[in-house]
Amino acid sequence: MLKIDISAIEKSKIDAIIPEIKSAHEKLTKKTGAGNDFLGWVDLPVNYDKAEFARVKAAAAAIQKQSQVLLVIGIGGSYLGSRAVIEALKGSFYNLKKKNTPDVLFVGNNLSASYVEDIISLIDGRDFSINVISKSGTTTEPAVAFRVFKQLIEERYGKEEAKKRIFATTDKARGALKKLCDQEGYETFVIPDDVGGRYSVYTPVGLLPIAVAGIDIDAMLAGAGEMREICSLPDIKNPAWQYVAARNILYREGKTTEVLATYDPDYVFLAEWFKQLYGESEGKENKGIFPAAISLTADLHSMGQYMQEGKRCLMETVLLIGEPTGAVTVPNDPDNADGLNFLSGKSFFEIEKQACRGTYLAHTDGGVPNLLLTMEKKDERCLGGLLYFFEFACGLSGYTLGVNPFDQPGVEAYKKNMFALLGKPGFEEEGKKLEARLK
Amino acid sequence: MLKIDISAIEKSKIDAIIPEIKSAHEKLTKKTGAGNDFLGWVDLPVNYDKAEFARVKAAAAAIQKQSQVLLVIGIGGSYLGSRAVIEALKGSFYNLKKKNTPDVLFVGNNLSASYVEDIISLIDGRDFSINVISKSGTTTEPAVAFRVFKQLIEERYGKEEAKKRIFATTDKARGALKKLCDQEGYETFVIPDDVGGRYSVYTPVGLLPIAVAGIDIDAMLAGAGEMREICSLPDIKNPAWQYVAARNILYREGKTTEVLATYDPDYVFLAEWFKQLYGESEGKENKGIFPAAISLTADLHSMGQYMQEGKRCLMETVLLIGEPTGAVTVPNDPDNADGLNFLSGKSFFEIEKQACRGTYLAHTDGGVPNLLLTMEKKDERCLGGLLYFFEFACGLSGYTLGVNPFDQPGVEAYKKNMFALLGKPGFEEEGKKLEARLK
Repeated sequence: MLKIDISAIEKSKIDAIIPEIKSAHEKLTKKTGAGNDFLGWVDLPVNYDKAEFARVKAAAAAIQKQSQVLLVIGIGGSYLGSRAVIEALKGSFYNLKKKNTPDVLFVGNNLSASYVEDIISLIDGRDFSINVISKSGTTTEPAVAFRVFKQLIEERYGKEEAKKRIFATTDKARGALKKLCDQEGYETFVIPDDVGGRYSVYTPVGLLPIAVAGIDIDAMLAGAGEMREICSLPDIKNPAWQYVAARNILYREGKTTEVLATYDPDYVFLAEWFKQLYGESEGKENKGIFPAAISLTADLHSMGQYMQEGKRCLMETVLLIGEPTGAVTVPNDPDNADGLNFLSGKSFFEIEKQACRGTYLAHTDGGVPNLLLTMEKKDERCLGGLLYFFEFACGLSGYTLGVNPFDQPGVEAYKKNMFALLGKPGFEEEGKKLEARLK
Repeated sequence: MLKIDISAIEKSKIDAIIPEIKSAHEKLTKKTGAGNDFLGWVDLPVNYDKAEFARVKAAAAAIQKQSQVLLVIGIGGSYLGSRAVIEALKGSFYNLKKKNTPDVLFVGNNLSASYVEDIISLIDGRDFSINVISKSGTTTEPAVAFRVFKQLIEERYGKEEAKKRIFATTDKARGALKKLCDQEGYETFVIPDDVGGRYSVYTPVGLLPIAVAGIDIDAMLAGAGEMREICSLPDIKNPAWQYVAARNILYREGKTTEVLATYDPDYVFLAEWFKQLYGESEGKENKGIFPAAISLTADLHSMGQYMQEGKRCLMETVLLIGEPTGAVTVPNDPDNADGLNFLSGKSFFEIEKQACRGTYLAHTDGGVPNLLLTMEKKDERCLGGLLYFFEFACGLSGYTLGVNPFDQPGVEAYKKNMFALLGKPGFEEEGKKLEARLK
């Protein structure tokens, strides 16, 4: 389902780093490393809650039946996984296209007033449901959005009917949102204690919105399960070992930025999910590979110049899907005005594939080591496998780098400042200090 | 219309780099530097072709009248500017919203077959026009897309009516597309010889699609004209000088990646436009700042950890819009379930602004020098000024870095390989060599 090519790296260098990868693999699989209370995702593809999974599917069917729009309220890991999967498999034009599943609109991931106003206009006159996703229920962005849309859905449908249209994904026992759910009687799904936000795509956090969009979540989990087997192999044949070996070798040689290159606009949010996963797992203690992304071939005409000839601090991980999902071919032009008749009758995919192969060589020649991931085809099973691959490799890579890949202590810093500047009770003194600095 | 704060940089360092900026400014304004035959954009806000500008507005009105969808076929600078402006001013949900102007769909900027199929389904049963944008008419991505949609529009409307629905923006005299336009009688707009793709937003390349979306292009140009005056000042009071001084000082100190932080999903493509502008202008001779972007507050919950505590090779340029465009406020909750009643009644913009100020301090404290750009308000005039500011500063910065900011020699490398692998006549030998390397 997934092949990796790390021939850009000399074998002797790989051999030398293997003991470190082996040790990281043991930490991960024996759960002896830092952050080992957040390893629930490792076995999730097999050890998931079957009864809850059935409830997720039933809720998705209910939402499909009662709504033209699902609002997903969540930030960070609470929206990136589902958005990545929906766009990858249903296309970035999903909401614009005619279809027999609801639009899925993501809200509560920013503080833009015009964004909220646009969403309000988009649900005007259309039936909608809400999936609010928050472990605590107190994260500012989703919490204030939920206040707005809870009020709106209750005004629209009345309090009782609204309760049937609000689905919450939250802590199993504690927190403001869980308390509200118990009080109001919303259907509730669990964010497990041992699965962090960026690893939560296989929990109801990811699965409910994905299922609403008509994606086969059984196949996704099955693909993840297959990849779990593959990744469990304590050997350099394991593609996760190869990826982790390559990127850590390159990082130590000064390639401090990794550019994930995807070949389809539908994969832009897959790259955003990747950036959270790796950036948040590795970017600590003043180290870590900086994760960036390009969407090709579009960005060959924007970031292509830098990739080819800019500062050589880059490595590139290329993701190519091995089988076409579209059948468009290039029409012949009797006049051959553009001189491209040598492409007549060729499929777009064939041209894209050769663009990918040509770019791989061009960037390599330009001094950017290229790692190549080939996903067998664009479907639930393979994408499920790919996501698990990236998750497993990320844990492995974080341990190889020497950090705890499962915490995110730095995310609190801005929040404290924001609360102080907003006059949160108890933060008054700090607020004054910050205002003085900002003068 | 635009304020800059570079207080992150010590004054003595600024003083020391001023002579270099002064020299770069002279090269740019006296047109004595490398690439000086591509400086048409400098005076474009005042020296544009008034008759053609009137034709752009007339064509936009015709397209608005005859079409529900405009397909913009172009790649790189031929779509990023217009897409950036349309999303910034009309919102990233522009195509999804009800409105009295046509949808604007961008095509020909990738080789995805499913993308083309989606676009075909989106124009099914809806009147459409095409704006094909290409200097040569032979760039692969837009050329093959134009073949597909030219065939489709001629089948739909017949060859004669189709001619009134195809608008071309291309070279004034030469090239495959210009030849076709003359032959078919398409209305044609000019990409000036002295304006490169990434600097072309104020030519018909950018202006026609922008006008179709109902945006006031007079006000945009007026804003650019105002900023041209501001940027012409040969003094450190010039905000472009300040920006260029700061980013080059930081680059020399090892801050080799610049992260543009915007505060609204509507600005994601503005950041993409910025990345092309700076990446393509500076990324050469194995140097240049790597341009990256984050969309806040969303990405504080994904890239925020890296920004706060990752490898300290980052500088951050924060763009904040100074006046709200939306009036949403936080509803009060008598139960205060989420503990956020201290925000009740506050506008989303007020919270976003304090998040921005708090993040500015948090990232600064974390070791990421922050430069702050404040745009007065979200309107045509200020955005017009902002784009010109970035263009002027980019030219200045390229000269300060010691490169030609107006060429892009590296973009050809992948194309040659792709053509060889696709069996283009004359490339057969090279194709064999590449295939051998790829084995």
